[in-house]
Amino acid sequence: MQLDPELDLQLVRELNAPRELLYKCWTTPEHLVHWFVPKPHKVTHCSLDVRPGGACNTTFEVEGNLMENNGVYLEVIPNEKLVFTDGYTAGWKPAPEPFMTAIVTFEDLGGGRTRYTATARHRNPDTAKAHKDMGFYDGWGTVATQLETYAQGLKA
Amino acid sequence: MQLDPELDLQLVRELNAPRELLYKCWTTPEHLVHWFVPKPHKVTHCSLDVRPGGACNTTFEVEGNLMENNGVYLEVIPNEKLVFTDGYTAGWKPAPEPFMTAIVTFEDLGGGRTRYTATARHRNPDTAKAHKDMGFYDGWGTVATQLETYAQGLKA
Repeated sequence: MQLDPELDLQLVRELNAPRELLYKCWTTPEHLVHWFVPKPHKVTHCSLDVRPGGACNTTFEVEGNLMENNGVYLEVIPNEKLVFTDGYTAGWKPAPEPFMTAIVTFEDLGGGRTRYTATARHRNPDTAKAHKDMGFYDGWGTVATQLETYAQGLKA
Repeated sequence: MQLDPELDLQLVRELNAPRELLYKCWTTPEHLVHWFVPKPHKVTHCSLDVRPGGACNTTFEVEGNLMENNGVYLEVIPNEKLVFTDGYTAGWKPAPEPFMTAIVTFEDLGGGRTRYTATARHRNPDTAKAHKDMGFYDGWGTVATQLETYAQGLKA
């Protein structure tokens, strides 16, 4: 993927867990709630319909406030790739001001390891900058570590 | 589909052609160029990659001016449903100011007839109004008639 430094943010990590397991953690609500936001924040609700146009809805509790994140999946390649966005809600209803589109890929590195790449694409430089300033790298990095730890617990 | 009168425009027509043929006309560049814009305007280029995230690109010639329309498919159910938008270009690159999302469905009515529904969803009332004022109903209506005539020619 060719990145645009003004529009795209990307995190690449090698995780010590097989990609099938990471994909399962990403696509199963009972698993996702355990690692999807940096602790001590919580996911209080999660509803996933993992197909193009299917809902990808979560609610976070951050310092006592509930934040609803409603979106849809755009592309689903089992064990390899997930694309989702807040730019639509179910039924392909466009959001007035889309924030980002996330592309998550899982590459098998052999030996039960995975190259995990999370890319956030934005529609203009201001939105990308806002996302960076909100702590994209720290946030998504912490979450990648939480995902790895959680997946290893499932594997054991 | 529940319509929002402030955001959505919809055309419903019964066409005298089987839905498989209409779908083929929609998804094959050599066919699409013959009916996709109201005559005497022309489609001078068409490149379709009919899968979620695949390019849906056309160029129109309108009174000597070339108009490029680059987008992607969001959802593809063969012979039943196509969803596409200018809100992305290939690689899930978000467009700065998405205009619309089109949902086209083909319902089999038996006897080689099809209920053809074209819905354009917009992200705000201004965009929907602009699309209506550009002549959505006349334009998409003319194109539906052209599609029916062209498909009947293929069937013969």
